[in-house]
Amino acid sequence: MPGSSFGEAFRITTAGESHGPGNVVIIDGCPPGLPLSTEDLVSDLGRRRPGQSRLVTQRKEADAPEILSGVFEGKTTGTPIAILVRNVDQRSRDYSDISDKYRPGHADKSFDDKYGFRDYRGGGRASARETVARVAAGAVAKKLLRTAFGGRVTGYVIQVGDVVATVDDPVAVTEAAVETLPDGEPNLVRCPDPLAAQKMVELIDAVRKDQDSVGGVAEICATGIPAGLGEPVFDKLKADLGKALFSLPAVLGVEYGIGFRGASLRGSENNDIFVPEGDRVVTETNRHGGILGGISTGMPIVLRAAVKPTSSLSREQRTVTRSGEVTTIQTKGRHDPCLLPRFVPMAEAMVALVLADHYVRWIGQSRTLGP
Amino acid sequence: MPGSSFGEAFRITTAGESHGPGNVVIIDGCPPGLPLSTEDLVSDLGRRRPGQSRLVTQRKEADAPEILSGVFEGKTTGTPIAILVRNVDQRSRDYSDISDKYRPGHADKSFDDKYGFRDYRGGGRASARETVARVAAGAVAKKLLRTAFGGRVTGYVIQVGDVVATVDDPVAVTEAAVETLPDGEPNLVRCPDPLAAQKMVELIDAVRKDQDSVGGVAEICATGIPAGLGEPVFDKLKADLGKALFSLPAVLGVEYGIGFRGASLRGSENNDIFVPEGDRVVTETNRHGGILGGISTGMPIVLRAAVKPTSSLSREQRTVTRSGEVTTIQTKGRHDPCLLPRFVPMAEAMVALVLADHYVRWIGQSRTLGP
Amino acid sequence: MPGSSFGEAFRITTAGESHGPGNVVIIDGCPPGLPLSTEDLVSDLGRRRPGQSRLVTQRKEADAPEILSGVFEGKTTGTPIAILVRNVDQRSRDYSDISDKYRPGHADKSFDDKYGFRDYRGGGRASARETVARVAAGAVAKKLLRTAFGGRVTGYVIQVGDVVATVDDPVAVTEAAVETLPDGEPNLVRCPDPLAAQKMVELIDAVRKDQDSVGGVAEICATGIPAGLGEPVFDKLKADLGKALFSLPAVLGVEYGIGFRGASLRGSENNDIFVPEGDRVVTETNRHGGILGGISTGMPIVLRAAVKPTSSLSREQRTVTRSGEVTTIQTKGRHDPCLLPRFVPMAEAMVALVLADHYVRWIGQSRTLGP
Amino acid sequence: MPGSSFGEAFRITTAGESHGPGNVVIIDGCPPGLPLSTEDLVSDLGRRRPGQSRLVTQRKEADAPEILSGVFEGKTTGTPIAILVRNVDQRSRDYSDISDKYRPGHADKSFDDKYGFRDYRGGGRASARETVARVAAGAVAKKLLRTAFGGRVTGYVIQVGDVVATVDDPVAVTEAAVETLPDGEPNLVRCPDPLAAQKMVELIDAVRKDQDSVGGVAEICATGIPAGLGEPVFDKLKADLGKALFSLPAVLGVEYGIGFRGASLRGSENNDIFVPEGDRVVTETNRHGGILGGISTGMPIVLRAAVKPTSSLSREQRTVTRSGEVTTIQTKGRHDPCLLPRFVPMAEAMVALVLADHYVRWIGQSRTLGP
Repeated sequence: MPGSSFGEAFRITTAGESHGPGNVVIIDGCPPGLPLSTEDLVSDLGRRRPGQSRLVTQRKEADAPEILSGVFEGKTTGTPIAILVRNVDQRSRDYSDISDKYRPGHADKSFDDKYGFRDYRGGGRASARETVARVAAGAVAKKLLRTAFGGRVTGYVIQVGDVVATVDDPVAVTEAAVETLPDGEPNLVRCPDPLAAQKMVELIDAVRKDQDSVGGVAEICATGIPAGLGEPVFDKLKADLGKALFSLPAVLGVEYGIGFRGASLRGSENNDIFVPEGDRVVTETNRHGGILGGISTGMPIVLRAAVKPTSSLSREQRTVTRSGEVTTIQTKGRHDPCLLPRFVPMAEAMVALVLADHYVRWIGQSRTLGP
Repeated sequence: MPGSSFGEAFRITTAGESHGPGNVVIIDGCPPGLPLSTEDLVSDLGRRRPGQSRLVTQRKEADAPEILSGVFEGKTTGTPIAILVRNVDQRSRDYSDISDKYRPGHADKSFDDKYGFRDYRGGGRASARETVARVAAGAVAKKLLRTAFGGRVTGYVIQVGDVVATVDDPVAVTEAAVETLPDGEPNLVRCPDPLAAQKMVELIDAVRKDQDSVGGVAEICATGIPAGLGEPVFDKLKADLGKALFSLPAVLGVEYGIGFRGASLRGSENNDIFVPEGDRVVTETNRHGGILGGISTGMPIVLRAAVKPTSSLSREQRTVTRSGEVTTIQTKGRHDPCLLPRFVPMAEAMVALVLADHYVRWIGQSRTLGP
Repeated sequence: MPGSSFGEAFRITTAGESHGPGNVVIIDGCPPGLPLSTEDLVSDLGRRRPGQSRLVTQRKEADAPEILSGVFEGKTTGTPIAILVRNVDQRSRDYSDISDKYRPGHADKSFDDKYGFRDYRGGGRASARETVARVAAGAVAKKLLRTAFGGRVTGYVIQVGDVVATVDDPVAVTEAAVETLPDGEPNLVRCPDPLAAQKMVELIDAVRKDQDSVGGVAEICATGIPAGLGEPVFDKLKADLGKALFSLPAVLGVEYGIGFRGASLRGSENNDIFVPEGDRVVTETNRHGGILGGISTGMPIVLRAAVKPTSSLSREQRTVTRSGEVTTIQTKGRHDPCLLPRFVPMAEAMVALVLADHYVRWIGQSRTLGP
Repeated sequence: MPGSSFGEAFRITTAGESHGPGNVVIIDGCPPGLPLSTEDLVSDLGRRRPGQSRLVTQRKEADAPEILSGVFEGKTTGTPIAILVRNVDQRSRDYSDISDKYRPGHADKSFDDKYGFRDYRGGGRASARETVARVAAGAVAKKLLRTAFGGRVTGYVIQVGDVVATVDDPVAVTEAAVETLPDGEPNLVRCPDPLAAQKMVELIDAVRKDQDSVGGVAEICATGIPAGLGEPVFDKLKADLGKALFSLPAVLGVEYGIGFRGASLRGSENNDIFVPEGDRVVTETNRHGGILGGISTGMPIVLRAAVKPTSSLSREQRTVTRSGEVTTIQTKGRHDPCLLPRFVPMAEAMVALVLADHYVRWIGQSRTLGP
């Protein structure tokens, strides 16, 4: 019944709120023998970290992870790995106003409807702060994918507002291009098309000054993934990936491969043709986004997620109080004018978690009597 | 690890292949006391049934369900409900060609990659035949929603190929308008916009004659759903609904509320404003599609799913054999030139299953110490 | 929330009542490639079958299983296996008396307390009839254990009332000795000590004539089980085996290895000493019953379950009606004067299901990065 | 697949080793509104604490819990509750000897068989140290039982070695009698029969001086538990309670109600007779231990668990090294000469967790359409 766990074989459980003592994740089912230390976690935690640039929330968090269990002499033992990230810069005073008013676009009223009351400090459990635990766990999943079969998961921004990037080949996008511009400057917005990236930054700066926010779209590409992952019916790979991305805050839509554009096509235009390549079978094109029948085909897995404009606005908005009286609210705290730059590592983490989970599941079923 | 169950508290498990003896679903966790008989199942099974019109596959199946357990004197007992739907018209001869060739766009190669071999008759477990079990279970879920709180789930087609319907208000779409045209004729394509429906039928007729297929988009609207359903993090209502729809065959993308269009908006354009309405709080607009923070708000829940054009084509396509040799294939069997008309009851079923599940979950947690 | 599934990786879900149309089990997660047909099921179903001898209930059931899915050309496909066993001899008239009276020792009142009402025909879901689905699934699990690593699970009766058998070495008990007496006659009571078996038969005959019933103890021994199965904390092998046996009707106690006698011992008396044997490490003695730290050691796994005397008695007993009025009841239907003979295949099935599940779980975790 | 979670609706997940930084538990599914603070945890943690008397291990741990999430303004919020207990007195040097030798009766070899290697410090995840997380969670479960319906769970020791206590009525045992002797001194062994308690203390003192250890039996009684908890088939209340107790270290056997003695009885001797009592129905006797058909009857729930003598002995024992060479070992570290005194709060915790879980599950299913 409770909803704080994700995955079946490589399974994570998280806890933590925006303004409590910290966030914790327990990873259960990680295979033994994986080299692991906090060094493996800090890169992605840094990419997700608030305060990393002027484009994101200015909350200051070191986000230094502590591994509490499951690692011995530099390797995972097979027992559960608990990781704790303490909250430091909580500034509860910024949020006291929201204890009685419902912020438009937020979960304040939802939590009251569900639980009868809520931890209103910074959104409590509904804050994107909880994703720090996911990103820590996702870094472990990524390490597993790389170690087990050389798999990689790379995310990047392809749209902010009406600025749309040109990315011809998802497989060609490098992590370096996502993090760094050709001139060596940090790629603040994590868009691998430098011209679009520049326009996106300008747009985000403009909406921020306008006390507004803006949405966008991220794309995630996983390469080197073995064929055969995913279950035929409910736990299709696309279904678990879809759930993974929709479980992130602010995601309004998810598609893979050709996505919504496929609705307009004919079968003869959409089908990807199988062809031999060396001793394997591949497809000439990848409109199927690496998944057929819900199962990975060995081709790159390509997904996109639409992210809404941040609901928190510094400008005044109409709303109601808990008792239903009309009022207005300004969200003075710290928030991201555009969620996309920090969304990239969150999305990568969720995709990696699904792939790690299905890989372990597949090994169990297919190796029991198989080769 | 296995993937044939769906839901946590109202939980279904299915089994069955296209050409085996039959398909079965076990519904575990249905509350006791729900009036139920096969009469409650036949309507949706009929809407999903092959052979219902010239627009769909001509496989002939009575799809007569047998309730094997869990119902006594016309009411559910609280113990598991098993429902069996036998396969009748299996015609295995139509499919013998595919035992050695990979059909483009199908799961044939995926299954070989996953399991080492496959039941090739009609696609085996990968056939949309398995959805007969989901639709039977979904009818029970719908009955529960109606009985517990008057909830309803209505699906319909809003796009086929490049024909796009006009549906101003999802809440205003009646089941009658989905099933019957204004002139009293059956609405073969299940589009509530009669003019678009006519063009969709013409398009499907055309692609069928052309030995081709076409994709589309369905919209699903759930009304009367209580506020408070869904879990804050992984099991957000949008996440479980997203998984539910992505778990259906051929779904390429899912969005709710404003969906992908929200990526282009500013926060000030996208946020829905809370206002009082009698003694409840509603939103002036419903761009949030009835879900905030992953939890239902009491507003109508509106989702859309993009469905790919049927992969099976009567026309010749290039492909490879299991051993990787180049060949061609024509899929002579019976298949839908457009999946959308039969997709509607499948999508309704999956949405109803998620809502029933989260309703029972919410009761458990919120009533233990609550009112 | 619902409780009709068992196992994590090799997972079964059952449905069915005593007097409904039938009982069904879905086995999800069985590895592909296991040779399987109904022939593999009939032996254990026969050992569990009512009417097999004068010592058991005289209900007549063919218990002919139908495999509805998951098997193709004689092998499991990796997709869910559904097995249906229809009820034939239901004779509802025998049980009409119990619709209003609570049978002592039965679940009648429990079901009313839980669900508000119940299917009173033959005990409904509380009848041992439901174990037919478990035994069918257990036969598949046994086949998997034998095929994957030559594992075997053998159960037998070691006590009926105050008649206690002498079984020096559980590993030496053959299935033949459990089923057949040295003189070639059927071993009706499934006790491998022929002298005790004779006394047990006499005792059961006596209690039956006395309109009474009698309890007993069964022992189950699993051999050839690899070391390393079981999880360190909650899903210890002993914990899942304990749950498995306690989940069977009428089980009052479970112990493994030295069991309750170990409470009286000192550590120096109880510890088994590790010694080398060829290239493996074994223990000189097996007081630990094949499990240390909750994980299998490679030594034989030995468990015992205490089974209560059948609650149904033909003699008159005091009780109350649903409305709490004092009355008397005689259970005239058909019931076992002693549950033990038919308990043996049920217990074997549950033990085999746990071992199959933990084997698949172990493969998944240990082979992902391992050899 | 992984085994570090327990429960379905009120669900805990734990992590932590004997000599890592600490142990953590996440409680997911706790209803909102339960008053909770660390004050509620310290009593049971103190009863479980090492160093509490000369009869137990002398490891020094403050066992001060930190609530990391899920509590706001003194009440649970309905979101996951994470509790951290740091390890302080780890003294790894005591255990360095065991890195290469298998301690008799311990999980050292099991872990090597399962994972290929192990965290050998103090037994790692196999140490009873992990139960600190269970006891913290169990305290929350107890608070829920008390708050929701006045339920109580009381454990006590009834046997140490061959000293057997006389406890006529489990319901009459008070927590005070378990913790304090009639003369006001602490009841070091937690046996409510003062004469037996004295003999138990003497026995434990004797075996300790003899560099040996001794086993025993604990009894747990839950009162005030509503009728109707438990599921009919696999998740019978007795099955989940059985698993709960077997999941604790050193438990060799579990029974409830009449237990193994019931094997010798006739049905006419064993059945408890239903009688009216005011407006409810009770049984005249309680041989059924509060559970019929796997479902609680409203009578007291009474269980017993046999606990083996501590495997760690200071005296020399024969064993083998990891590479299979014969050697000897003395376990010099700190260990309990008898596990029973500290086993009591562990067993209470596990029983409380099962009851809390089944209560929330029952509310969900029975209140959805019910009163």
